[in-house]
Amino acid sequence: MGKTKDAWSIDPEKSLRASTVGPIADFDPASKPGFDGDRKTGEKLLAEYGRDLSDLQERLFAEGRSGGSRSVLLVLQGMDTAGKGGIVRHVGGMMDPQGLTVRGFGKPTREELAHDFLWRIRTALPPAGKIGIFDRSHYEDVLPVRVHGLVPEAKWRGRYALINEFERELVAAGTTVIKCALVVSKAEQTKRLTKRLDRPDKYWKYDPSDIEERAHWDAYLAAYQDIFDLTDTAVAPWYVIPADSKWFSRLAIARLLRDTLDGLDLQWPPADFNVAEQQRLVAALED
Amino acid sequence: MGKTKDAWSIDPEKSLRASTVGPIADFDPASKPGFDGDRKTGEKLLAEYGRDLSDLQERLFAEGRSGGSRSVLLVLQGMDTAGKGGIVRHVGGMMDPQGLTVRGFGKPTREELAHDFLWRIRTALPPAGKIGIFDRSHYEDVLPVRVHGLVPEAKWRGRYALINEFERELVAAGTTVIKCALVVSKAEQTKRLTKRLDRPDKYWKYDPSDIEERAHWDAYLAAYQDIFDLTDTAVAPWYVIPADSKWFSRLAIARLLRDTLDGLDLQWPPADFNVAEQQRLVAALED
Repeated sequence: MGKTKDAWSIDPEKSLRASTVGPIADFDPASKPGFDGDRKTGEKLLAEYGRDLSDLQERLFAEGRSGGSRSVLLVLQGMDTAGKGGIVRHVGGMMDPQGLTVRGFGKPTREELAHDFLWRIRTALPPAGKIGIFDRSHYEDVLPVRVHGLVPEAKWRGRYALINEFERELVAAGTTVIKCALVVSKAEQTKRLTKRLDRPDKYWKYDPSDIEERAHWDAYLAAYQDIFDLTDTAVAPWYVIPADSKWFSRLAIARLLRDTLDGLDLQWPPADFNVAEQQRLVAALED
Repeated sequence: MGKTKDAWSIDPEKSLRASTVGPIADFDPASKPGFDGDRKTGEKLLAEYGRDLSDLQERLFAEGRSGGSRSVLLVLQGMDTAGKGGIVRHVGGMMDPQGLTVRGFGKPTREELAHDFLWRIRTALPPAGKIGIFDRSHYEDVLPVRVHGLVPEAKWRGRYALINEFERELVAAGTTVIKCALVVSKAEQTKRLTKRLDRPDKYWKYDPSDIEERAHWDAYLAAYQDIFDLTDTAVAPWYVIPADSKWFSRLAIARLLRDTLDGLDLQWPPADFNVAEQQRLVAALED
């Protein structure tokens, strides 16, 4: 792994774990739990994590091509402007697109609504050998759906257990799951919305409904708190990512992803042919 | 667009167009038609094209999110070791994974074989706003399928017209199509196969059937010649990419893709809300 003196005094798998950060309502989105470096160190480290990620991803891809069944799923959640798209671009962008699948989940379509809420999620899971990134996920069904009362309370309350069961299955089938919730402050969100309205090349990212959603801030925090309390499991952990500094959220997620892949102990697949024999055949080829 | 003095004396849209490069059997995979620079210039240019591509891709993505229906499809074909995967990694890797879909087409599954040969292709097309890369494609059905006689001649002969019709439809529906065939020499292929056998971290890329395929080299060249003669159309052009130098094949394809996107005259979508009103609302938000 990387060479820069590690500026993490506490491993982010510990310092950012949802069960350890305390109540989300008190969480500081400008904090950097466990990290003692500055932005410059962070950017240097991010580049190192990128090289590690690229190598580990190729091993996972090779394993998938050689009959392995493992894959990795990174779930991203976060309020509007928290920077989920930036994570896909800047962390996902450090990897080979061939080994990556990215899926966004917006308002469900009619077809999706005609199915159980996990149906569209199941169809989008990364195949063996790949890293999947979900930009929003099945957790939308206990976030806006809960906050806006789109289904009866008994129904959304039942979903936490269904989600845990689904994720347990997924992990048992070979997918390693990590879940990251990006948390931005109201002040930083205001700044980012203002910027979108100042620049015509950012208008397309602006959605007037973001302001309406903001009126439900506390209800969203309560919904996130329940998610952390009920679905931060040993097999599918939740991490809380402070997102007021974009560089820090990218650094933290890259590091969590790298450590997750590193933990898979990925090996280059052995040859499933006779190497010496093939070397003789290749040496005999005529140009 | 980029600032480096352009080292192309002839635009690759002309110099590499299948209809202008002459018979494929006489094509030199080490040549660099239209390009007068060296590797260093090429690498500098590639980085510039990457920045352009990233900007253009974001505009296309924004358009797709704002109701546009346009998309782009890059079809990659090429013999084993020609470097298709490297194009996905190094050219695709310069773009935002969020706006990219990558699909590989291997030996058809039973389900795929139960459908018409274009079925699996249709299900994999890039949605509005995205750039799709096909690593192999519907052209496999007139390449190995033809060379190995997997379907009767009358059947594969009929496919060129079906392909042209399919691509015409696709383009009419808003997808811009460019097709690149990577051409490697026998000598370079031998080198690359040798390298795969020398390094345990490359074994997974080695497939003994690559040597068997090589015995059909001339039949493949004839199949490619028919593809160029019959399916290099104004709406879905074929480019022949010399692939003995990896840096040059990446440079050429990045440039073709950039010019293709540039030709779409992509504009940032106008605001579909009242900007001044939203600015007032955002200014009034409490933190």
